[in-house]
Amino acid sequence: MTMKNLQTLKGFRDFLPDEARKRQYALNIIRRTFELFGFEPLETPALEYAEILIGGKYGSEAEKLVYTFQDKGGRNVALRYDQTVPTARVIAMYKDKLTPPFRRYQIQNVWRAEKPQKGRFREILHCDADIYGSPSPIADAEIIAVSYAILKNLGFEKFKVFINDRLILFNLMNAASVPTEMHLSAIQTLDKLDKKPQQEVIDELSQKGLTDEQINKLFDELDKVQISPQLETVLKTASFLGVSNDDIKFLPHLARGLDYYTGTIFELVIDGYTGGSVAGGGRYDNLIQALSGINVPAVGIAFGFDRIIEAMEQFNLFPGKGKGVKVLITIFGKDYSPMSSFVASHLRTNGIATELFPDETTKLDKQLKYANKKEFSWVVIIGPNEVKRDEVVIKNLNTGTQESVKLKELVSKIKP
Amino acid sequence: MTMKNLQTLKGFRDFLPDEARKRQYALNIIRRTFELFGFEPLETPALEYAEILIGGKYGSEAEKLVYTFQDKGGRNVALRYDQTVPTARVIAMYKDKLTPPFRRYQIQNVWRAEKPQKGRFREILHCDADIYGSPSPIADAEIIAVSYAILKNLGFEKFKVFINDRLILFNLMNAASVPTEMHLSAIQTLDKLDKKPQQEVIDELSQKGLTDEQINKLFDELDKVQISPQLETVLKTASFLGVSNDDIKFLPHLARGLDYYTGTIFELVIDGYTGGSVAGGGRYDNLIQALSGINVPAVGIAFGFDRIIEAMEQFNLFPGKGKGVKVLITIFGKDYSPMSSFVASHLRTNGIATELFPDETTKLDKQLKYANKKEFSWVVIIGPNEVKRDEVVIKNLNTGTQESVKLKELVSKIKP
Repeated sequence: MTMKNLQTLKGFRDFLPDEARKRQYALNIIRRTFELFGFEPLETPALEYAEILIGGKYGSEAEKLVYTFQDKGGRNVALRYDQTVPTARVIAMYKDKLTPPFRRYQIQNVWRAEKPQKGRFREILHCDADIYGSPSPIADAEIIAVSYAILKNLGFEKFKVFINDRLILFNLMNAASVPTEMHLSAIQTLDKLDKKPQQEVIDELSQKGLTDEQINKLFDELDKVQISPQLETVLKTASFLGVSNDDIKFLPHLARGLDYYTGTIFELVIDGYTGGSVAGGGRYDNLIQALSGINVPAVGIAFGFDRIIEAMEQFNLFPGKGKGVKVLITIFGKDYSPMSSFVASHLRTNGIATELFPDETTKLDKQLKYANKKEFSWVVIIGPNEVKRDEVVIKNLNTGTQESVKLKELVSKIKP
Repeated sequence: MTMKNLQTLKGFRDFLPDEARKRQYALNIIRRTFELFGFEPLETPALEYAEILIGGKYGSEAEKLVYTFQDKGGRNVALRYDQTVPTARVIAMYKDKLTPPFRRYQIQNVWRAEKPQKGRFREILHCDADIYGSPSPIADAEIIAVSYAILKNLGFEKFKVFINDRLILFNLMNAASVPTEMHLSAIQTLDKLDKKPQQEVIDELSQKGLTDEQINKLFDELDKVQISPQLETVLKTASFLGVSNDDIKFLPHLARGLDYYTGTIFELVIDGYTGGSVAGGGRYDNLIQALSGINVPAVGIAFGFDRIIEAMEQFNLFPGKGKGVKVLITIFGKDYSPMSSFVASHLRTNGIATELFPDETTKLDKQLKYANKKEFSWVVIIGPNEVKRDEVVIKNLNTGTQESVKLKELVSKIKP
């Protein structure tokens, strides 16, 4: 029964301890910040009846990426593809239990049968927060404020919130006499103004069938576009909610990819990180009705967790390697394991993460090598001399220094 | 594209906020305690090549419960069924990266196509901790100590660790001349001595083919069985690691269900909770070799997370309902939303979980009704009089009392 091919599926990842610890660190901050802003956790199953997820919910191209199969009872089932459609089901199923306005966060894996390529995975952690049941710009501002606080709390210093209103874009299109059926497509092209030279954007609009006149008018209007009263209120409220005015910017060509946005849209971009925006969202007042039949205005944000981790890596925002486990208690030999166990328990009771080397037959120098390899902060050694004097030897692995300390002073010596 | 059948698959669950919050609360404690004891997080993918999981790893009966299917690339894939087999793959794949002894915890969902029935689910959260690479009883004691600390930290006051050694059971069987091929089966029957009258156990042994003589000898030997030196060391070390002697008990007929245990076995039982043991584990020194070809002794524990939640419910160990979100800031009307936003931000900066009611057009009495329904601890009201005097009105929803306080006193008034 031995495993022959030792491999994971393409697009799927093992997270070994160093990586898993970083992800947990970031997740804890994201989760705590959502809760500080009053968002409540929600979890939905990994598997759903396929008919809940497919049939036009994600568009025909995306739907091809949903993992579907027949279970052993012959039911057509599908793996979670996003967290919005399952939440729409929840809102419809439990509408008497969930008092609106309902603000929830959801942090779960989703699965997408994407073509595997660098930085694109088939199992991805999604971190979403949304407010359901309020059409007010105050809800938009709350979503922006919690997203802003998350980046601050993760330790990012320089980043921007870009904000726009889909209505401004649609008005632009009307002012330039672009036919309605071309609005969404033209908006997606305008969105590229940040990444591409203006001429390329013009060429793409032209290829999509816009006339020169329409294109000229579009750029004319774009130059003199005014912020909408709705966005004005969002900005003002966000500012009172702690978002610095310097860090939020009206960007009239910002479009975001999803077709379903109906009003405010925003994205968060970290200065100096080139992997793209780390969070994005907006108002989608029609989607929940389209999905569940229940009229519920909504606004929300989704964090790109892998990008967050990558950017934190770039700016060195994780606590030092090996800081997760602080102290290794070695065992000098069989007779000394009780004393070492006692000291381990003593440190743990004082809240210090401690590993007792789990084998009394391993030679001390091998235990010390293990400590160096795993990068503990401290190693504790308790031999015959130490036991006699009620002392322990502590070695600081960062500085290499070593000293004997009385047992009762141990905690204060090594506590950060 | 509306959803027609609003339902989840049988055996799968939505966790609405009240339930999800409780699960998060327990998980945080479990995770923190694992880390305090030096265990490191590991994550593996939900989907694996089917051949990694099937082919005798779980036994033929269990294997029928593995969710398998063909993905869109024609690969046979399977959903995670437990966390031990994927960890065996990890240990074999990354043997140069993982310095033994390797202690890891893993908290992820597993999926099993069980017959749905009360208390049996198809998507279950598993919480495992194991030490790989040490044959020493000190590793066994570390596993027992961390499990014990978890129940303490969750708030349980009265519970027991039952402990035994499979070798003691096998010796018993030999002493009673039970043929080797009947050992495991007879051991599983002996395990029922806690739940069933002795006569029923005797009858079952007899049905399984043991002679009266063998059975009599078995019970004779069971009465005078002595603890093994190995268990003696486990118990002594566990005691130094903080496990009270009153709470751990040698139980010579304890067997645990899994066939692969080779030495120490243990389970944790909460006094007064009738849903079964909440955690169980033991030493399995041959399994990793059988799975991955690499000889790695191992000892570990698995928590039954749903039972933990049920028992915590029974003993009222969760913080009060609605305590997750403490304060609702109402909005008196459009002109007052800046002031309310500012106060929300002020409380959040001081670490108080705060929801700003996200709609300035909702009448105040409706906002207060919402607060009562969601069971906040406090409601804050800021109207024209308050703004003039730099005050806010706070209402304690637990006592029903209401008072005006200066803004600068607000935090100290409502902080627990």
